[in-house]
Amino acid sequence: MTRPNIRFRLAKRADLPSIVRMLADDELGSQRERYENPLPEAYYSAFEQIESDPNHELIVAERNGEVIGTVHLMFLPSVSFQGGLRAQVESVRVDKQFQSQEIGSAMMKWSIQRAKERGVHVVQLTTHKTRVDANRFYERLGFKASHLGMKLSLK
Amino acid sequence: MTRPNIRFRLAKRADLPSIVRMLADDELGSQRERYENPLPEAYYSAFEQIESDPNHELIVAERNGEVIGTVHLMFLPSVSFQGGLRAQVESVRVDKQFQSQEIGSAMMKWSIQRAKERGVHVVQLTTHKTRVDANRFYERLGFKASHLGMKLSLK
Repeated sequence: MTRPNIRFRLAKRADLPSIVRMLADDELGSQRERYENPLPEAYYSAFEQIESDPNHELIVAERNGEVIGTVHLMFLPSVSFQGGLRAQVESVRVDKQFQSQEIGSAMMKWSIQRAKERGVHVVQLTTHKTRVDANRFYERLGFKASHLGMKLSLK
Repeated sequence: MTRPNIRFRLAKRADLPSIVRMLADDELGSQRERYENPLPEAYYSAFEQIESDPNHELIVAERNGEVIGTVHLMFLPSVSFQGGLRAQVESVRVDKQFQSQEIGSAMMKWSIQRAKERGVHVVQLTTHKTRVDANRFYERLGFKASHLGMKLSLK
């Protein structure tokens, strides 16, 4: 197994089209994103909120100057677990043309390490039940599917 | 069905012992909380972070001046869903001696309404698979168990 030569860093505003392209590029994402040129303004305003909040880290994986993956880390203070900080992982994507190269795995391991640095006691995420490969992927990384993830759509 | 006469408001520092008592008072909570007098300092520092962050609302349900329920609402900006804001519901508890009085239901309906006021497109939560009654409770409120909730403990 070769180690992928990837750099992880905070996303910049100019990365947003690459991020939205990856979010839109799968079966569930294509139904809910609008990857257009220019991008709808709502993406930029969400990005600004994320960028200005130290409890959010929108990350990109970069190789040879090209953005090939993304993950959104949310650090969530909570009273429960003795006031323990949690990390929540959202919006995980690897560019389809670079899949099966351990990039997702490297990105998640980096994210778990980042969570440790910030003193987190638990990393949590939800995956759609239909994403069977994703569920297995997270189990291989040590995640336990101990919970149900419930959603109530308001729109 | 009588309507419970309950007021919902932001938690104050002085509410923290009542909140921790409720968090600790069930099978899973008793294993992970420390309801002591005085409370461990970590609870207060978590409370201060939550209180100072406008994207967090730690709520208590009050009746006749007594705290009988709690819920932590987290408002999460995200790039996905066209930059849509989510609400996450955590740390839901009703005082055991007041259960089966529709208090949890009133508290969740209030929370959903609050999420609508803030322009949220989806309310999300996870429940432990062993909390069968909780799962049914959320389904009655309209939540769909579409996801798996996965956790990786770091401590």
